[in-house]
Formats: sequence, structure tokens, C-alpha cells
Amino acid sequence: MTRILVINPNTSRAMTGTVGRCAREVAAPGTEVRAAGPSMGPESIESHYDAALSVPGLLIEVAQGEADGVDGYVIACFGDPGLDAARELARGPVVGIAEAAMHTASLLGRTFSIVTTLSRTIGRTRDLVHRYGFTDACAGVHASDIPVLDLEAPEPRRHVLEACATALENDRSDVLVLGCAGMADLCGDISARLGVPVVDGVTAATKLVESLIALGLRTGKRDEYAPPGPKRYTGLLRDFTIPP
Amino acid sequence: MTRILVINPNTSRAMTGTVGRCAREVAAPGTEVRAAGPSMGPESIESHYDAALSVPGLLIEVAQGEADGVDGYVIACFGDPGLDAARELARGPVVGIAEAAMHTASLLGRTFSIVTTLSRTIGRTRDLVHRYGFTDACAGVHASDIPVLDLEAPEPRRHVLEACATALENDRSDVLVLGCAGMADLCGDISARLGVPVVDGVTAATKLVESLIALGLRTGKRDEYAPPGPKRYTGLLRDFTIPP
Amino acid sequence: MTRILVINPNTSRAMTGTVGRCAREVAAPGTEVRAAGPSMGPESIESHYDAALSVPGLLIEVAQGEADGVDGYVIACFGDPGLDAARELARGPVVGIAEAAMHTASLLGRTFSIVTTLSRTIGRTRDLVHRYGFTDACAGVHASDIPVLDLEAPEPRRHVLEACATALENDRSDVLVLGCAGMADLCGDISARLGVPVVDGVTAATKLVESLIALGLRTGKRDEYAPPGPKRYTGLLRDFTIPP
Amino acid sequence: MTRILVINPNTSRAMTGTVGRCAREVAAPGTEVRAAGPSMGPESIESHYDAALSVPGLLIEVAQGEADGVDGYVIACFGDPGLDAARELARGPVVGIAEAAMHTASLLGRTFSIVTTLSRTIGRTRDLVHRYGFTDACAGVHASDIPVLDLEAPEPRRHVLEACATALENDRSDVLVLGCAGMADLCGDISARLGVPVVDGVTAATKLVESLIALGLRTGKRDEYAPPGPKRYTGLLRDFTIPP
Amino acid sequence: MTRILVINPNTSRAMTGTVGRCAREVAAPGTEVRAAGPSMGPESIESHYDAALSVPGLLIEVAQGEADGVDGYVIACFGDPGLDAARELARGPVVGIAEAAMHTASLLGRTFSIVTTLSRTIGRTRDLVHRYGFTDACAGVHASDIPVLDLEAPEPRRHVLEACATALENDRSDVLVLGCAGMADLCGDISARLGVPVVDGVTAATKLVESLIALGLRTGKRDEYAPPGPKRYTGLLRDFTIPP
Amino acid sequence: MTRILVINPNTSRAMTGTVGRCAREVAAPGTEVRAAGPSMGPESIESHYDAALSVPGLLIEVAQGEADGVDGYVIACFGDPGLDAARELARGPVVGIAEAAMHTASLLGRTFSIVTTLSRTIGRTRDLVHRYGFTDACAGVHASDIPVLDLEAPEPRRHVLEACATALENDRSDVLVLGCAGMADLCGDISARLGVPVVDGVTAATKLVESLIALGLRTGKRDEYAPPGPKRYTGLLRDFTIPP
Repeated sequence: MTRILVINPNTSRAMTGTVGRCAREVAAPGTEVRAAGPSMGPESIESHYDAALSVPGLLIEVAQGEADGVDGYVIACFGDPGLDAARELARGPVVGIAEAAMHTASLLGRTFSIVTTLSRTIGRTRDLVHRYGFTDACAGVHASDIPVLDLEAPEPRRHVLEACATALENDRSDVLVLGCAGMADLCGDISARLGVPVVDGVTAATKLVESLIALGLRTGKRDEYAPPGPKRYTGLLRDFTIPP
Repeated sequence: MTRILVINPNTSRAMTGTVGRCAREVAAPGTEVRAAGPSMGPESIESHYDAALSVPGLLIEVAQGEADGVDGYVIACFGDPGLDAARELARGPVVGIAEAAMHTASLLGRTFSIVTTLSRTIGRTRDLVHRYGFTDACAGVHASDIPVLDLEAPEPRRHVLEACATALENDRSDVLVLGCAGMADLCGDISARLGVPVVDGVTAATKLVESLIALGLRTGKRDEYAPPGPKRYTGLLRDFTIPP
Repeated sequence: MTRILVINPNTSRAMTGTVGRCAREVAAPGTEVRAAGPSMGPESIESHYDAALSVPGLLIEVAQGEADGVDGYVIACFGDPGLDAARELARGPVVGIAEAAMHTASLLGRTFSIVTTLSRTIGRTRDLVHRYGFTDACAGVHASDIPVLDLEAPEPRRHVLEACATALENDRSDVLVLGCAGMADLCGDISARLGVPVVDGVTAATKLVESLIALGLRTGKRDEYAPPGPKRYTGLLRDFTIPP
Repeated sequence: MTRILVINPNTSRAMTGTVGRCAREVAAPGTEVRAAGPSMGPESIESHYDAALSVPGLLIEVAQGEADGVDGYVIACFGDPGLDAARELARGPVVGIAEAAMHTASLLGRTFSIVTTLSRTIGRTRDLVHRYGFTDACAGVHASDIPVLDLEAPEPRRHVLEACATALENDRSDVLVLGCAGMADLCGDISARLGVPVVDGVTAATKLVESLIALGLRTGKRDEYAPPGPKRYTGLLRDFTIPP
Repeated sequence: MTRILVINPNTSRAMTGTVGRCAREVAAPGTEVRAAGPSMGPESIESHYDAALSVPGLLIEVAQGEADGVDGYVIACFGDPGLDAARELARGPVVGIAEAAMHTASLLGRTFSIVTTLSRTIGRTRDLVHRYGFTDACAGVHASDIPVLDLEAPEPRRHVLEACATALENDRSDVLVLGCAGMADLCGDISARLGVPVVDGVTAATKLVESLIALGLRTGKRDEYAPPGPKRYTGLLRDFTIPP
Repeated sequence: MTRILVINPNTSRAMTGTVGRCAREVAAPGTEVRAAGPSMGPESIESHYDAALSVPGLLIEVAQGEADGVDGYVIACFGDPGLDAARELARGPVVGIAEAAMHTASLLGRTFSIVTTLSRTIGRTRDLVHRYGFTDACAGVHASDIPVLDLEAPEPRRHVLEACATALENDRSDVLVLGCAGMADLCGDISARLGVPVVDGVTAATKLVESLIALGLRTGKRDEYAPPGPKRYTGLLRDFTIPP
């Protein structure tokens, strides 16, 4: 039995539910997917400030996952917050959904376009595009100007579709990437309407983590991603202390 | 039932056997893996010349796979020969093993080192590193100076292990990538001895193709990777003609 | 006497004729230019599939050229198919027309725009732009949407001119590059009408090869481009076998 | 009166003292420098985990600074943790010490070498080198293998000096950058011994922030760095909630 | 007392006056700013030819500054002419205004747009963007099509403002950079109207040089920027001879 | 009759003689090569200062060449001083020897190594490597530590040979580039001893200029490289004034 923990780093339970459902739909037989949201942090992640404040709660979930024997993790926010720190904490593989979506999209064509939520998140997305090596492959990053928590409603969802159509037209790209965990269930519909592959990071990351586990592969631990050493932590964060 | 065809582009039947066995070992229940080698082409691929001459035979296998209803393909040579052409021909996803290994390795650490066969293949490998976006992630490409068809023997296998140890030491990288389909069964041993994740492209590509199929994702076909148009082909290659 | 072989990798005799005529017009006194087309392969190259299938026929021409004592080669298709393999086979220099056109254009201004045939070839062109180092110098790659074999007719030629004018306007570049061997005889006319230097790869490559020969320079053969080693080749391709 | 707040994101009071003293020594007349350390977080920052957990405490200091009318901020940890989030929160300029040191070093020569603490921090440093655009200018990143809190002792300080000498020799660079706030007071000594400019980020950042304030320049707030919107925050982090 | 020499490399006395006034306005108490223009060279710099011919006169000013005990230099032309040569001649730091403006702008947001004078200067500006490492940070370089010496008149100044507004709109950038020393006094007005930080290189460079002096930092002199060696110079340029 | 002017930008007559002789040896029948050195400037170019002071004299030679009806120019110093300015002045093509050598070398293998004179010139060489797009192709830049004017003596020539051997060994490159006009006559000997192609910029540039002229190609003049406009020039440089 392979155990994957999908962590939604915001505190919206509705989104945790959607994310978990989407992940389970693509998991192989023999893979158990659990979705979790942190007990502390912002209800949605739409700024660097939100992202920074989501990380402690997310790391608590990883630490709990380690105690529970989880085999691998998905970080289900398109800014991939806390990814490096989570890789230090976890024994098994950890994959972010931006990372997963971009890797997956690059296998399906020469270029992809990303459609995300608010324009203020474009900078972080571009950072990740460079970090992961997709500067040439990413033909454009576009905002739909829909706040994260509005993504469930029909009207905003139509806006996302329109933003996707415009992105495809302008970028002349081969593939679309949806830039928010809250868009996970829009893939099929957009792909059917626009006739191109549409990649959602939640499902892509779930399959990547599942694959890494099947291949017996874990994060390399010889230097940068070794477990954090024992250290004194002060104040509100005392729960995070790594004992000597 | 998911059907994956793993194509070894050289004509060595022993290597086709090894490649198929390794791929099957990591496939999920419900995935049928078939390995095939072309009836024409070089017995091993160690030069641009060899790679160029392997492609027509490889494309015949893809065309046959399409007739047989194959869902996705792995090209099992680390130079990823014919990958773009195969993506035009096939309906389902096609993944090369160099591509797969690099994407997979980049999920396991910041940097990886590649250990390949003859030094004359390093140039092509570097080309692929750039093409796939791993210029920053790839800390080095190293030759073991072992010809492809010698990889089954114990002495050459020790050389590969030593080249891996030296690469790790010099590059200070997190992950190793084995740069030849013929090294597919060396992963476990090298990882156990050197204490780092070791990625083989054959198994990595098998899981990536399987995942893409599970996600319902195929190559984008709106422009560059549309099927080749009908055209007159002359001479020995008439079997490849795309009818109008 | 310097002997240059210009190889048109498709089987269109008309294009071979045009290509040879254009090359001869710029050759120095004392240079003999011969144009050849392969006896096998596609009648035009408009996809990765076509390009892959053109290479074996092209390599036969190079092998024949070596037997005939040819001093240097031009590969007259803008995708530069088989360039690396040809460099392994040939003793003298081999230059592709995309490569030649880009190097030449970069000597005439800060940026150049490329106008090619079908939009599906843009991806390959961009690959070559990166491979040759012209990522900064190339201001844009544009399709005229004219199939290769239609380039002789007046109406399509007007489309190419219009695509060139639009590219110049949008890219604000200094120089134009024509992205197909079949456009070789359009240079003068477009340059006269648009008032900028217009580079055709066939003539540019002919002069580069001629220059390399005059300088006594050949492909470096110490590792990657050494002649392919002896090896067993199977099936239709037995003619390509390198004997021990 | 210009008011600058230098935030040491770890909880080591000794280091906060050193950092404040160094900053005050270079401040112009009319600049008041205050140094602060957070009441929560790790006592030193030597992993991604430590860095992530330092950010909430750091943001509390920024919020307090805003209430106190601070004109600009220095983040005094070489990983520049929380820099983007702090820019959203603050009205005035915010500069990280890695950022400041690299910009400053690049004005003093063609290339610089960075000497940092533990080798596990090299990856983050490289990330910042790329993010800030110094990929060509940075000739190398080297670890002295000295933990942050040992930097006050004489023996470790000698190790840092030796690591600097080796870096200069191997990289043939023009300038040295010290990669930890705890090295701030080593500059003069190392420069005197090795005969090259040595840049410390704490003092460099203090002068940059002071200059930006003198120029009347603040973070651009039109999109990415606009103040975070009002939002519900849960759990331990409720103190960070941005009220509507 | 810190002594900074701001050199306007063209011979326009009006512009030297403006440049000096702007620099003095931002200098700290205790900094003496002197502005100088060369006695030989072009009256404005609008081509590579002009820039090349401005350098000898500029170097005479640096040599004179060295004799006068100047502590640091600003080169007040946005092409940063003669910067490397001046760094060899001067003991103290030398900063160009393009360099200063770009470094400063990059501290205020993710991306900046540059608005310059004639379109023929865009190429040089792009060169500097790459050289200084701001390829990702620079969202666009735009010409206002105003000759340098017309920048004092009201109508051209309105054109610059309009070019700035258009640049911001198209590039979606966070910060504006004014690409000519003659625009130094336009900053405040444009920033007030457009609501974004606007960086002028003259004032930015003055503060950077002042900061470097305060930090005790000078150009690294161990190799590339060592003083030019003694050598025989011929003809009109005999005044430049470095004596043995 | 094609007329090419090869300008040695330093005032060493011996070097002008060598450069002219080398250029004439490779010129085609029908090409007249003239070599010239300026009447003002440094006797050798070994610093940014020297390079800057060589440009006015070099531009006088170009202006004279234009009056004499020269068809194209070679700038025979490996720093390519004044190249952009010369392109503005001249009607015909202008090629620098660093530029020519790198373009030529890149046609002969995947990577080349450059061996130059003093280590202080490496920075400028790297600048040109980036500017021309050969960041990936250039495997290393190495100094022989031989001053320019010593290159005629036997002992220094042996040092250059040794530096070349070491560069090849360390860089594992396919091709050597000699990084000084004064090394033009060393090519044959080094190539014979080391068994790799060795490119000298003087001869390479002569053939490139000759080829551009044969192709009817000149510098694009629509914007950046248009002739410099009429302008007032002051002082020693009044001879350079462009009349209205």
C-alpha cells in the first residue's frame, strides 16, 4: 500500500476537499491518497505574505505525516510554498503542483501557457518557471483576475476558460497549465472546449509522487536536503523544534 | 488495460530484453508493457551517425504500435533519437529516457550528475540538457568509456560504478542519472553503494508515460506535432509514405 | 580546384536545380559547386518526420562525396537535418544553411528576423537558434504559411515578401533571414523592396564552406566528431554499414 | 532623521548586537539605525526549514516597524528570507543582505566569489545569485563549513579567512562576498590580508536602504508588491491577520 | 570630506550644469560633488561613434580627478562609455549611470522599464542590460525619439512622459528607469503623475559611489582593473601616455 | 576587384605587416587586401584603457577607407575595439577578429577554447563571447601571459603552444582559437602539433568580409547602425566632426 499525503496549504476546507477528490481520481489501485489542510494559516494564498504564513502550518502536516508513515507528499498550492523545507523534513519524495504541472506539460509539446488567478501572483510563478528550468518552454503566464476562493462559482470559471482561450491564441502554445489548486476540476472541460492538453498540478503531482515511490526514489539527503539539525526555537514556534 | 510500447532503437535483442524486463518491474497493475527493437538499424547507438540511422526503424515500430492500439511509447536510448518525429506519428504520449531521467532527477534534489558511455556522446547529452531546461540542474556529464554492448559484463559495470563515485565527488550533486538504456539494471546496486538516489531513464520513462495516460494527457496536436501531412516518399523509404 | 557538394535533402529536382544555381552564382573562381538530391526520402521537408526520413539519403550523398574527393559540404534544408552525422562522416567541413544564415546575419546588425514556411517548422527553427547561440540576436521567427513546393509560384512569393515586411515592422530588426532553401532566389528582390540586408542560407553556406577550405580548416575529429566506428547494421540500411 | 530597522531574523541576541553595531558604523549623520531580532523563531538559520520558520517573526518586526514609522528595512540573513513578503508589508524600501552584497560587489569588479557557512546553504545562495541576475558575475559559492553561531570564535574565523583565500585563488575573481550576517565584522581583516575588496551584506544593505530613502524611492506598489489584502488567518498566526 | 566627481562625457555645458545640480541635491552632508565636462568630444552622445569619441576626453577628466584626490566618480551618460577604462585609471570606485539606475530599480520591484532618447541607442542599452545581469528584470527598453539636447524643452518633456506611460502599460512593470542623463530632473514629475518609482541614473550613481566610499570599498585591482602599464602612445593622444 | 582594408588598431608597424601578410595569403584571386595602422594610439592593446584610446585612430582609418572606396573592413585586435562605431561609419561590412574567430570555430566542432595574451584581457574576451552568443560553445578562455609585442620571439611562442595544449586537455574542446592578432602566423604550427583545428581571427575575418562582399551584403542601416548624424565636436577630436 502506497500512502500519499496531499497538503492544501491554505485553510479552506472546501478546497482541501476538491483537491483530495481530484488526486484520488487519478491514483493507481494500491495508492491511498489523504488530503489535509493546516490548522493555522491563511484561508487562501494570494500574496508572498500569505505564502510565507502558510508554511509553518504546512510543515506541521509534513511532520505529522512522517510520524504516520506517509510515503510521499504533494504540496497543493501553485506557488510551491515550503517545498525545500518539506524536502528536508520528509524521508520520501515531495512534489509541488507548479513543479509537477510544468514538468508534465513539457512532455506534451514544445511550449505551454500558464493561466493563474490574480496578476500579483505572476511574479512568483515566473520565479518558479526559471527555478525549474522552463524559461524556454513557458510561452506566457496570464492572470484570470479571479480570487482563489471564487473559483467554485460558474461565472469565474467562465472567466478562467476565456483567459485560457486568449492565452492559447496569443502564445501559440501547445499545452495549457492551470495555475491554482482550486482549478483542479476544470481540466477536462477546458481541454474539451479548446482542443489542447490541459494540465492541472494536483493530479500531475499525485502521479509523479506515486511514480517516484514505485521507482524507490527519495530526495537525495547528502547535503542540502539532509534533515534539519537539532536547534533551539523560540516563542510561538516551539512546536517546530528539532530535538537534539 | 493500459498498453505501453518500449522501443529500444538499436537491434541488440539482449538489450531489448533487459529494457523490457526493467520496465515491467515498475509498471502498475493494469499496465501491459511490451518491448520491441527495430528490424533495421545499428546494433548499438554511439554516434550521431548511429542515432540518425536508428530513427527510420524506430518510426516503423511507432507506426505498427499505432495500428495495434498502443496507448503510449518509451524511446529507450539516452540520446532520445526520433522523439519529435514519433510525437507527430503517435496519438498517445511519447517520452524519451534522457528526458524522463532528467525530469525525474530534478524532483529529487537541486543538482544531478549524468554518467554515460563513450565520451563522444557527451555533446548530444549536453544538447538534451539544454533542450529540456536542465542547464542549471545538471552539475556534470561524465563518460565511463564503456561501449554500450559491453555493459552486461562485470568488469565494465565496475567501471560505471567508479565513474559514478567520481562524478558525485567532483560535482557535489544530489542525484545520479545513468546515461544509457543498457545501464537500467544497475540502479539499485549503485544507489546502495553510493547512498544517493540513482535514476534510470527506462523505468522513469515507463512511469511517466503510464502517468500521462492515467491523466488522459496526450501530445498537443494543434501545430508542430500535428500528424505529418500526405506526401510522396521515394526509394527505400517508400514504406514510410503518409497516404493522402 | 575546390570542390563543394551542396546537398538538397529532399527529392525535388527543381529545388536541387535552384539551389545549385544560386550556390554557383556566388562561388569564387576556382570553386566547383555540384548540387545533389538523394535518391530516397521525402519530396519536401515540413515536419520532424520528413526531416528524420531525409537523413539516410543525405548520408549516402555524403559517403559518395567522400569517395569522390569532395572538399566540403552544404546541407541545403533550413532544419539542418543530419548535420552532426554528416560531420562525423566527412573529412572536410560541413555547414547547414540555417547555421550559415544565422552566423552571416549576425555580422550585419544586432538582430535578425527569420521568415520560414509553415508554422509547424518554427519549433525546430527555435531549437537551432538556441543551439547556435543566437537567442539574443534572433528577434523573431515567423511563418509565411507557404508549403515548400509552392515557393516557385508568384502568388506565394508575394506572401513571403509580405511576411518579411511584417516581421521587420514588428521585430524592429536590422536583417532578414529567409528560412527555406526554396527561397534562395528571393533575396535580391526582397532586399531591394524592403531596404534591409536579406540573407539566404544556401549562398551564405557556400561561401562559409569555401572560406573554411581556403583557411585549411576541417571539423575537429578528436572526440565527438570522429568517424563512426565499425558496427553491424541490419535490414534496409545495410548499405550504411561502416566496415571494420 | 532617517530611521532604518535592521532585522536579524534569528533569535541570537549576540548576532543582533554585532549586526546593529556594524550597520551603525557606516550610517550617515542623520540616519538612526535600530537592530531587532524576532521573539519567535530559530536561533540560527542553516536550512530551508530554519529560514521558513524565521519568517513569521521577521514579519512581526516589519509590522511593528510600520507602526513605529520606520523609513526602510534591512533583512540581515544571507538567505534573504521573507524579502518579498516584507516588501508587500512595508511602505519604504526593504533590502536583503545577500541582494545588497551582490549588487555592491558587482560594482567593484567583473566577478566575485561568495564564502558562506555550511555547504547545505550553497543551493539557496545559488538560487539568489540567479534571481538577482548575477549568474555571470558570481565566479563561485564556497562553504567554510563553520556553523553560524561559531563565527565569533577565533579558530572558526581563521577557517573563514582560509576559505576566502582558496576561493580567490580558484575563482580568479576580483571581489569577495561574505555570505553570513555573522561575518559582518570580518571584512576589514580579510580585505587587509588578501588585498581585495571584501563586501559584507549588512553594511552594504544599510547604505543601499539609506540611499533609496535619500532618493525618495520606495517599492513599486502597483501589482505584485501591493499590501496584502484583508483575509482570515487561523490558529497561532491570528496575530498576522490583515483586517478588512 | 568625501569628494565625488560627476563627469558628463559630452561637451554640453547646460547638461553638465543640470547633472551637477541633481547630484548635489541627493548628496549627504559631508559629500562634495563636482560636475565636469570634457574639453574635447561630441556635444551629445547618440551613436556608438559619439560614444567612442567621448571616451578620451572623459579619461582626461578622470586622470585630472586622480591628481586632485577625488574619492569616486560617476560617468553621467546612459551608455556608460569608458567605464572599464576609467576603473583601471581611478583608485576609488567608478559607477556608470545606466549601471546605477538598473541596480537601484531592481531593488524596488521585480521588473523595470527603460525609456531612452533615440531608438538607435536601444541596442547599446540592451547590451548593458545583459552585461549587468538584468535580462530578466528589464521588461522593456523604449525610445521616446527625443534627441538628447532637446530634453530641456517642454514639448519633448511631455513626449518622454507619454513614452513612460506607454512603457508601463505594455510592460506591466513595477518601476521606470530614465535612460539619459539629460532626464535627471524629470524623475519627480513623472513619478507623481504615474504613481510608480522612477529612477534616474545620475542621482542613483551619486548615492552608490558615496556609499562605496563610506564602506571603504574600491575597484578590485588584482588583474583586469589594475592600472594600465607604461606604454608608448603616438600622435594626438600623446597626453594619455602612461609613463614607465 | 574587391578591396578589403585590414586595420591593426595599434601602432606597431611590425604587427601591421604580419597581419597584412596573413590576410593576403588566404584572400581569393580578385581580392586586394591592404593593411593599415593608425597614426595615433597605443603601440599595443592590453587594457581597456589601451582599447579605448585606439578607437579614434581606427575610426580615422575607416573614414579614409570610405573616401578611398574600400568594400569591407577587418578590425585586427581580439577585443574588437570600435566595432559598432566602425559599422556606423562604413557602407560595407566590418568584421572584428574575435567575432570572426568565434563564428568560424563554432562551425568546426561543438566547443572551442580561446588562448589569449595577458590574463587581464580575459574579462573583455568573456564579454565578447556572451555578446556574440558563444556562451555554450566557448569551453574556456586562457591566458598565455605573453605581452602582445613579445609574440614574435621564439620563447614566448613556445609558451603559447603550451598554453594551447593545456587548454585542450582541460576543456576537452574540439577547436582552438588564438586570441590575438599577433598570433596570426602561429596557426599552422600549433594545429600540426596538437592535431586540432586552430582558428586565427585575422584570416577568418578576411574570408568572412570577402564572403559578405561576394554575397552583396552590408551592415543593415535602418536604425542603430545608420551613419552618425551631423554634430559639433570639440577640441582635439575636431577632425572627426560629421558635417551637416
